[in-house]
Amino acid sequence: MDRSALIDLIFRKKSFLCIGLDTDLTKIPKHLLVHDDPAFEFNKAIIDATYDLAVAYKPNFAFYECNGTRGWQSLTKTIQYINETYPGQLFSIADAKRGDIGNTSQQYARAMFDPTSSGMAFDAVTVAPYMGEDSVKPFLSYPGKWIIVLALTSNKGAEDFQFFTAGGSRLFEQVLSKSQHWGGNDNMMYVVGATKAEMLAAIRKIIPGHFLLVPGVGAQGGSLAEVAKYGLTKDCGLIVNSSRNIIYASPGVDFAEKAREEAKKMQQEMEALLK
Amino acid sequence: MDRSALIDLIFRKKSFLCIGLDTDLTKIPKHLLVHDDPAFEFNKAIIDATYDLAVAYKPNFAFYECNGTRGWQSLTKTIQYINETYPGQLFSIADAKRGDIGNTSQQYARAMFDPTSSGMAFDAVTVAPYMGEDSVKPFLSYPGKWIIVLALTSNKGAEDFQFFTAGGSRLFEQVLSKSQHWGGNDNMMYVVGATKAEMLAAIRKIIPGHFLLVPGVGAQGGSLAEVAKYGLTKDCGLIVNSSRNIIYASPGVDFAEKAREEAKKMQQEMEALLK
Repeated sequence: MDRSALIDLIFRKKSFLCIGLDTDLTKIPKHLLVHDDPAFEFNKAIIDATYDLAVAYKPNFAFYECNGTRGWQSLTKTIQYINETYPGQLFSIADAKRGDIGNTSQQYARAMFDPTSSGMAFDAVTVAPYMGEDSVKPFLSYPGKWIIVLALTSNKGAEDFQFFTAGGSRLFEQVLSKSQHWGGNDNMMYVVGATKAEMLAAIRKIIPGHFLLVPGVGAQGGSLAEVAKYGLTKDCGLIVNSSRNIIYASPGVDFAEKAREEAKKMQQEMEALLK
Repeated sequence: MDRSALIDLIFRKKSFLCIGLDTDLTKIPKHLLVHDDPAFEFNKAIIDATYDLAVAYKPNFAFYECNGTRGWQSLTKTIQYINETYPGQLFSIADAKRGDIGNTSQQYARAMFDPTSSGMAFDAVTVAPYMGEDSVKPFLSYPGKWIIVLALTSNKGAEDFQFFTAGGSRLFEQVLSKSQHWGGNDNMMYVVGATKAEMLAAIRKIIPGHFLLVPGVGAQGGSLAEVAKYGLTKDCGLIVNSSRNIIYASPGVDFAEKAREEAKKMQQEMEALLK
């Protein structure tokens, strides 16, 4: 999905909500466990109940990989379901935090973007910047696909290295400054945690036009209003993720309905902020 | 596998060779493609032909993920084969470069280390340091398991951020200094590329006792003698990886035999260096 289609989607749905599919078999409603593929059934129900309120879905790969081949199958079925059932209506993010030497990243790019190879066709993948330009470049050779580079993350450990400062510039600012030249604002986004919303003003000075994927609203304590205050652009420029608050809103048979209620609350807050 | 067992293995086999299983269906011998699972058949043949010369095997996850669920199955069968056929004789490394917020890394740790969850039981996993302590800690809660933290990588992009310098200290040195306190030298190793062998002296000043996983010998141009000169310790302290040079030594029916010849050359060079 290209940049203009994404922006259209956001203003049409009046939402910049991404729903994180951190699907944990120990947390999904018990009645789903009778299915052959409970994780997929859960995801399908969540997506069907919220697709008009969210612009993006973000399966978190760890929650599938922990179930081995079976989990990888649930993941594949989920992205196929999104693409087949809601073509052009949803932006999909492979939250996989990949990054390796060039010939290896090439293979990761095939995994995320080439359905003839892996069965999966995500719109975007999250990547780690530590190994530098050649570790993320292979992902950029797919037209219409995106990388989302980790810049400033929402966890406590972000302070360990991301604030390492040289010549008045912090590592996460170096990452933003350097990496923005690897692609354009039509194929690169950045992860900036909502728990660091006060940093968004400084970040917007370096990358005024790029989209930001913002995790950390909700369970991790970040504020949507704060994020919007410093991060919104005329093109919106934000995709804000919520996972646990929405998908685990209820442990009962009404889980999808309750997920919709939570998603609706966020969408309405977003609609007001977009005005 | 604990540290003393690993050291025993190295001195018994007179080798610190790791063979990288970067198994690419477009590069393996054509005659294997008739099998149901050509990647697994290839790995099995390579392992059987070299298990006495190598101390470790390192499947590179990207090369499996690019084939989707089918690839994940080949990967699972490979690690199961290693553990069942050569118990206690081989150290296994999940080359996956994972790292995410704590509750997500917990799931990645289950994927790599807990066979009751994922079907896979690797001894070690490569992790990216960018997200800091809480992103790798969950991997350290498994007794006898290891994390291998990216410090100084073998690719050109290593120069983009890893040499970012503040107060006379480069980012990769910061990573070494800080992270060594997250665990001990009995559950943490570091990735240091062979193409940066001249940095090993500085690195050994910071972490004199940790094992290093050294990629980049062979196809990427690094020298084994240089790596040993600066990196060897009394406990060896090195695991040197070679992938393409060994596994693709021949494209014909003699691929396993030729792989053994290449592995044997490296083992003999290592035996001399260990003296």
